[in-house]
Amino acid sequence: MKANRIYNFNPGPAALPLPVLEEIQEYLLNFQGSGMSVTEISHRSKQFEGVIEDAVARTKRLLNLDDRYHVLFIQGGASMQFHMIALNLLADGATADYVNTGTWSTKAIKEAEILGRSITVAASSEDRNFCYIPKDISFNPNAAFVHITSNNTIKGTQWAEFPDTKGVPIVSDMSSDIMSRPLDASRFGLIYAGAQKNIGPAGVCMAIIRDDLLERIPDNLPSMLSYRTYVNKNSLYNTPPCFAIYTVQLVLKWLEETVGGLDKMAAINRQKADALYGCIDASGFYRATADPDSRSTMNVTFRLPSEALEAKFVQEGLANGLGGLKGHRSVGGCRASIYNASGLDAIEALTDFMKTFEKANG
Amino acid sequence: MKANRIYNFNPGPAALPLPVLEEIQEYLLNFQGSGMSVTEISHRSKQFEGVIEDAVARTKRLLNLDDRYHVLFIQGGASMQFHMIALNLLADGATADYVNTGTWSTKAIKEAEILGRSITVAASSEDRNFCYIPKDISFNPNAAFVHITSNNTIKGTQWAEFPDTKGVPIVSDMSSDIMSRPLDASRFGLIYAGAQKNIGPAGVCMAIIRDDLLERIPDNLPSMLSYRTYVNKNSLYNTPPCFAIYTVQLVLKWLEETVGGLDKMAAINRQKADALYGCIDASGFYRATADPDSRSTMNVTFRLPSEALEAKFVQEGLANGLGGLKGHRSVGGCRASIYNASGLDAIEALTDFMKTFEKANG
Repeated sequence: MKANRIYNFNPGPAALPLPVLEEIQEYLLNFQGSGMSVTEISHRSKQFEGVIEDAVARTKRLLNLDDRYHVLFIQGGASMQFHMIALNLLADGATADYVNTGTWSTKAIKEAEILGRSITVAASSEDRNFCYIPKDISFNPNAAFVHITSNNTIKGTQWAEFPDTKGVPIVSDMSSDIMSRPLDASRFGLIYAGAQKNIGPAGVCMAIIRDDLLERIPDNLPSMLSYRTYVNKNSLYNTPPCFAIYTVQLVLKWLEETVGGLDKMAAINRQKADALYGCIDASGFYRATADPDSRSTMNVTFRLPSEALEAKFVQEGLANGLGGLKGHRSVGGCRASIYNASGLDAIEALTDFMKTFEKANG
Repeated sequence: MKANRIYNFNPGPAALPLPVLEEIQEYLLNFQGSGMSVTEISHRSKQFEGVIEDAVARTKRLLNLDDRYHVLFIQGGASMQFHMIALNLLADGATADYVNTGTWSTKAIKEAEILGRSITVAASSEDRNFCYIPKDISFNPNAAFVHITSNNTIKGTQWAEFPDTKGVPIVSDMSSDIMSRPLDASRFGLIYAGAQKNIGPAGVCMAIIRDDLLERIPDNLPSMLSYRTYVNKNSLYNTPPCFAIYTVQLVLKWLEETVGGLDKMAAINRQKADALYGCIDASGFYRATADPDSRSTMNVTFRLPSEALEAKFVQEGLANGLGGLKGHRSVGGCRASIYNASGLDAIEALTDFMKTFEKANG
C-alpha cells in the first residue's frame, strides 16, 4: 500500500481505485486543457458531454446492454429511487412484488407504502434476521415488477442467482454489487445503484431503465422525478453532479482497460471472498453471520466471541492500517466491505491481521 | 492568472477560488491524515461530520442566521426545490404568490402547477422579455409565501432590494447570488441555492428553512422529499454528496477567512460590476440588456451590434484566455458571469479585451 494510505474496508462511501484518484488529482486545476477544473466547466460543454457519453457507453459495454436500455444519472441515491420507482411504475393502480432481504429492501417497501401503492411482500428473510436469501418464491404473474436488493450491504447477503420471475421484469437495487460480476440484463426492467460503493463517490445514482418500463410512466410527473426527463435530456435536464459522474467514468475506464472487464473482475472478487471466508471458516474464533449459500462477495459480515473483542479488533485493525471494519450500527459485529477497488493485497493484509489477532486473543 | 488557467466567466458550473481547488488537490489521496480520500471516508465518520458541521456553522455566521433557521444539504439542484416547495408548503390547500422574473421563476411556477397547487403569479416582467424586476407589487396577505428568484442568471437581472411582503415569508431561489452580499434573513422563510454558481461545485443544493415553515410540512411525505427528514437527520438521512459538501465548506472558509465576510465580498462585487457595466455604458458598441435599476452584479448580459460580432467576441475571448462569455442558448448575446470567485483581475482582463475588440471591430 502506498505510503500513508490505508486499506479501506468502508461499506460506502468506499475505496476508489488509486489510479482514478491520482488522475483526478493530476488534472484538478486544468481538465483536458480547458484551463478550468472539471468542477468549473459547463455541463453543456463538449468536454463534459464527452465524459457523460463515455460513462454511458462503457456501462453499456460492461453490462452488455442492448438498445432498449437507457443509462441515466440521477441525484438522491438509492433512497430517492425507492420513491421514484413507486411514483413512476405503480401509478396506474398496478401491483408489485417486493422481496424483503434487509434494511434497504425494507426502506424500498416503506416508500411505496408512503405513496399508498399496492405492493405485496412476496418473500422475506426477516424470520432469521435477514441472514439468508429466500428461495422458491412464488411471484404474482400479474405483478408490474419484482423488486429485489441484489446485495445487502448491512446483512452481508447476496443473490447468487436471480429469481425466476416467469417474465415479470425485475427491478433491482444493485448499489453494493453493480459491476462486480457479469449480468444477464435481459431479465431486468430497471437497475439502480448509488455510486458510492462500487463505481464512484457519493452524490450520483446510476439508473438503467428498459423501454417497456419507460412506456408505463404517466405524463405530468414532477420533472425531476420522472425517468422520462432523464431519458429525453440525456441526464442533462438540469445541472447534473458533474464531479461524481466524472469519477464514475474514470472507474468504468479502469474496469474496462485495467481490470479487463466484468468476467475478470468477478474472478478476482470470487478469489477475494473465498480467501476471506476461508480464513473465517478455518477459525473457531471468527463466525460468519450469513448462511453459506447466501454469502455476499462484497460485504463479509462476521462476529467475534464477544463485543469487547469486536471493539478491540476494529481498533487494532485501524492501528494496523485496516480501516472500516466495524459492522453497521444497527447490527453490530464486524464487516469487511471488499468492493472492486479492494485488491488481493488488501485481503491478504486483512487475513494476516485476523490470524495474528486470533493468536493473541483466542 | 496562474499558468495554464483561464479567466472563467461560466454561468454555472462556474469558477471556484483557486486556493480551494489547490487544497482539494493537495489532500485528495489523504484527507486529514485518515489515509483515505475525502471521497472514500464514511459520511458518518468524525472527519465528515466535522466538514458538514463547519459548513453549517459558517453559513449561519456569514448570513447572520438565528436559531430558527436550519441549514440543509439536498440533492437535485434548485429544480428539485421547485417541486419540494410545493409539496411541503402548499399541501394543505394554502395558496402562494410567485413573481415571474425569467426562466427559473417560470420553472418554479410550472412545478407547483404540475402538483395542482393553488398559486398566483403576482407580478411578471415577461412583457419586456424579463429585462427588469417588477416594482410596487401587491401581494396576497393570506399567501403562505411569496416566491422570488433573487438573481436571474439568464436574463441578467437581480432584486436590488427585496419586496415588502407585509410579513408574508419570502421563499427565494438564490442559486446565482447567495453569499454575494449580506442578507436580512428575517424576511425569508426558505432560501435555496444550487451550489454550482457561487458556493461550490454541482451536485448539492443548500436550503435554509425557518421553524415556522417547517411546522407546516405534512407528515408522511416521501422521506427524501420532506425538509423535515433533512432537519431531523442533519442532512445525513442517507449518504449525502460528500465531495460537493466538502467543497462548499472550503468555499465558505475562504469567504470568511480570506475575503473577510459578506460586507467585504459585496464591496468587491460592487466594484467588479461597476467596472464592467461602466465599460459597457461608455461604449457605443456594447449594450447592456437589463434595465439599469435591475442589473445583476453576478451575470452581466450584453449585446454587440450583430450576432456575427457576438460569435467572434466569444471565440476571440476564449483565444485570449477569457472563457464562458456566450449568452444562454435561449436568449443569445453575451454574458459575463462574475461570481464571488472571479477577482478584480478577471474584470480588468475582460474590460481590456472588450476595449481592444471594440477598436478592432467597432
